[in-house]
Amino acid sequence: MTDTLPVTERSRLRRLHERGHFDRDTINAILDAQPMCHVGYVMEGRPYVTPTLQWREGNHVYWHGSSASRALRAQKEAEVCLTVSILDGFVLARSGMHHSLNTRSVMLFGTAFKVEDPEEKLTKLGNFVNQLYPGRYETLRPDHAQDLKATTVMGMEISEGAAKLRAGGPKDEDEDYALPIWAGEIPVRMVVGEPIPDPRNLEGVEMPDHVRDFRYL
Amino acid sequence: MTDTLPVTERSRLRRLHERGHFDRDTINAILDAQPMCHVGYVMEGRPYVTPTLQWREGNHVYWHGSSASRALRAQKEAEVCLTVSILDGFVLARSGMHHSLNTRSVMLFGTAFKVEDPEEKLTKLGNFVNQLYPGRYETLRPDHAQDLKATTVMGMEISEGAAKLRAGGPKDEDEDYALPIWAGEIPVRMVVGEPIPDPRNLEGVEMPDHVRDFRYL
Ligand SMILES: Cc1cc2nc3c(=O)[nH]c(=O)nc-3n(C[C@H](O)[C@H](O)[C@H](O)COP(=O)(O)OP(=O)(O)OC[C@H]3O[C@@H](n4cnc5c(N)ncnc54)[C@H](O)[C@@H]3O)c2cc1C
Ligand SMILES: Cc1cc2nc3c(=O)[nH]c(=O)nc-3n(C[C@H](O)[C@H](O)[C@H](O)COP(=O)(O)OP(=O)(O)OC[C@H]3O[C@@H](n4cnc5c(N)ncnc54)[C@H](O)[C@@H]3O)c2cc1C
Ligand code: HEM
Ligand code: HEM
Repeated sequence: MTDTLPVTERSRLRRLHERGHFDRDTINAILDAQPMCHVGYVMEGRPYVTPTLQWREGNHVYWHGSSASRALRAQKEAEVCLTVSILDGFVLARSGMHHSLNTRSVMLFGTAFKVEDPEEKLTKLGNFVNQLYPGRYETLRPDHAQDLKATTVMGMEISEGAAKLRAGGPKDEDEDYALPIWAGEIPVRMVVGEPIPDPRNLEGVEMPDHVRDFRYL
Repeated sequence: MTDTLPVTERSRLRRLHERGHFDRDTINAILDAQPMCHVGYVMEGRPYVTPTLQWREGNHVYWHGSSASRALRAQKEAEVCLTVSILDGFVLARSGMHHSLNTRSVMLFGTAFKVEDPEEKLTKLGNFVNQLYPGRYETLRPDHAQDLKATTVMGMEISEGAAKLRAGGPKDEDEDYALPIWAGEIPVRMVVGEPIPDPRNLEGVEMPDHVRDFRYL
């Protein structure tokens, strides 16, 4: 197993290629930092982008949904592009063109497969829940057989793709640094608010650590 | 001009259709709340999803990038899917299957066009900057001709698509409410940090209101 993805015709960065990274550590860190992803697929020659949650296990990435989902059916054994994007800040420059964003993103390409084995599907769904909320899955009402039947888990090998990163302040044209224009960076980040217990929680049921310590991963 | 998009074969929600909305007010509010989008397009039959910034003007949505961008060239006069997603919270239920997210999202479908007229392109880029940072564009070093040449603005009519919304706590199976399992909601949101002035800002240049009051839109 190599720790760097190959640079292919599809994954090679043409624009600002110095921001590109192909090592698995960088790619995995971004996937693990942000469960939200956008999965692209083609139906009748036309593009679709569906927001979904992804989770990683080793060199694979997974996502789930309804077994009746039009999106998941179209993705099975088909080419997909799975993109994860994190916005870290807004970059303000002295000219319009040098305005930018600080971001971390990953684009992955490959053929999606459906996890067919029921045991494996169950394990994967448990891993999904527990990656978001450590230890929660075992505390839940066990899945009914029809819950599992209604659920499809999709997967893709992490074998082709790239990460792209930008950090830091603006990069202006040399002569523009003489201008009296405010330039800089506005950092943004996701924060977790106070958990809201369901009013129908039974008396005496306490907030578990996986909720109290939830840190948007 | 109608204030509701038609429900087409492509845009009709099959899954949890009660969460769907086709009125422009709902769709526009989501577009205006989140500049990040993911644009899906097809090259040689394969899907690509590129993270991009969008801005709305009336019944059109726009995005920009390099005139040499492979993505933008592939999108011109081609079908695209532009998706905007906002994550508002994590929903924890008493069974695995009823775990969910609180989200606001929009998927738009259509044919993308390139803004060819140089005057119009300039106006659009100014609007883009000023929608993020009111009044900033006029304070910048005016765009060089080559900046504008290097920049492509793409657009799409908002004429087909849907919004999907979820809010509130978990919805469990009737019998599961008797279980001593903590259920509820963990709200999340984007927050703006303290702006970081570029160390090369000239002395006496003060932080403008559009930075001080920046509120992630
Ligand atoms: C939140 C966010 C907002 C952005 N907003 C804009 C914008 O408004 N305008 C703009 O021009 N660009 C924006 N970008 C950058 C954009 O995603 C593309 O990187 C850029 O537009 C170049 O696209 P291209 O297809 O021409 O790149 P190319 O370099 O031709 O792409 C070739 C290959 O490089 C890799 N690659 C390209 N982009 C990325 C990426 N973002 N992440 C991981 N791998 C990548 C892929 O393997 C891709 O197939 C944004 C990025 C993020 C994360
Ligand atoms: C942040 C986020 C994370 C999500 N995570 C998951 C997940 O992990 N698993 C999961 O199954 N679903 C998830 N969803 C919902 C997902 O985006 C789809 O709505 C759902 O999977 C049904 O997809 P489908 O193609 O089967 O829907 P269908 O109902 O068949 O889609 C038909 C049409 O409905 C409209 N539509 C569908 N979904 C959306 C949407 N999200 N926004 C706007 N219009 C839409 C479009 O016009 C689409 O062409 C998530 C949504 C968001 C915003
Ligand atoms: C607030 C306003 C703006 C923001 C937030 C912004 C953001 C961005 C981002 C994130 C990129 C992608 C960089 C990358 O690939 O890593 C980009 C590319 C680009 N932007 Fe902007 N932009 C803004 C305004 C402008 C304006 C006004 C112009 C032109 C006058 C412009 C011209 C370009 C060009 C030419 C590229 C391509 C760079 C390249 O690939 O070499 N941008 N912009
Ligand atoms: C923490 C874990 C989980 C989260 C955050 C989560 C989140 C979601 C979200 C956001 C949707 C989309 C709902 C919509 O279309 O609006 C969804 C759909 C679905 N999920 Fe999960 N899920 C989780 C775990 C599970 C588990 C463990 C199962 C199965 C045992 C499951 C089964 C399903 C099914 C069947 C659907 C489709 C619903 C439908 O379209 O009718 N999910 N999930």
